[in-house]
Amino acid sequence: MPDRIDALVPFSPDRPKTRLADALAPAERREFADAMLTDVLAALRAADFSPRLLATEATGRDVPETVDDRPLTGAVNAALAARDPSAASPVAVVMADLALATPRALGRLRAPGDVVIAPGRGGGTNALLVRHPEFGVDYHGASYLDHLRAARRVGASVRELDSRRLATDVDERVDLAEALLTGEGAARDWLRDAGFELATGGGRVSVVRDGG
Amino acid sequence: MPDRIDALVPFSPDRPKTRLADALAPAERREFADAMLTDVLAALRAADFSPRLLATEATGRDVPETVDDRPLTGAVNAALAARDPSAASPVAVVMADLALATPRALGRLRAPGDVVIAPGRGGGTNALLVRHPEFGVDYHGASYLDHLRAARRVGASVRELDSRRLATDVDERVDLAEALLTGEGAARDWLRDAGFELATGGGRVSVVRDGG
Repeated sequence: MPDRIDALVPFSPDRPKTRLADALAPAERREFADAMLTDVLAALRAADFSPRLLATEATGRDVPETVDDRPLTGAVNAALAARDPSAASPVAVVMADLALATPRALGRLRAPGDVVIAPGRGGGTNALLVRHPEFGVDYHGASYLDHLRAARRVGASVRELDSRRLATDVDERVDLAEALLTGEGAARDWLRDAGFELATGGGRVSVVRDGG
Repeated sequence: MPDRIDALVPFSPDRPKTRLADALAPAERREFADAMLTDVLAALRAADFSPRLLATEATGRDVPETVDDRPLTGAVNAALAARDPSAASPVAVVMADLALATPRALGRLRAPGDVVIAPGRGGGTNALLVRHPEFGVDYHGASYLDHLRAARRVGASVRELDSRRLATDVDERVDLAEALLTGEGAARDWLRDAGFELATGGGRVSVVRDGG
């Protein structure tokens, strides 16, 4: 069995998924975000990671948790800096809204490289494994390109993790179709129970919701 | 060196990329589709595939070509049926608009399995490797799910190829950002030359075009 690797999972219980406002009511967005988090934590554990929530406020979940109400970049960098530098142990940072994440996909973060990056759709950074002590994150804008530059700046080697499952963060209505198509866990079930189903038309598949 | 595997690349020179009509003029869509095809063919060759165009009309390109003006599903199934069944040699089917495809990503099609499928965004099937003599394609609707069912029907094992690069077909304006972000070839260069650049705002990165 491989060594367990710490995995930070940033989560904002207070303001979840505002870009899904055209598809879900506020309470629903909270429930759906919770379901995605459940899936990500389960997949991380199954892939031999030790997840730790990095939450903007206490969640009450049965998982180790650091509460830090700063914006994402500052909170993640503080958590990275809090590591014991002599231990040089790797740490992963995995977004909480990867509704398609599987243990197999997350296990690929163990690829060699000072920094292993799974880019997201639209230039984001959905999952990272950091082995280099000087690498810091910056999640603003097209963070994938920024992270390539940041790695170059500190002389860290980079491996791109080419995964559709990790590239698919669920932020917008169109992404719900992906969770229905190839999701496998609580988030997919939540959407089905809420009445969402696939709508196939001319182009890409989208979602419709029944009257309920 | 691994054995070369035949790879069919369907291509419609006559009606390319209509869903990009809000971003590109008809002649531009043809040029851009050509650039993507160039990238896909180069990546296939570098990954030790032998590409063959399956074109709705003659292209004049310096690559083996089968002309078949039937719709996609019928043309691909005819080409699959034309194989020598006793040879049982695998054949790949790779879409021509995978602007992010790299030799490394395409090489993963050689994974074990009677059918290896790289699902696309929105439930499509962007790349396939078929080793089973009875498996046929159906590209209508959410073809990834249909292909899972079709494999089950003929008793073929399926491997999902989890690749962001192969999942990203460039069909709509929003996809152009992906080609600019992590494309590496002629399609990315074409977009830059045409004046497209990344626009980072609140959510995902999009594209803007200069006055030219």
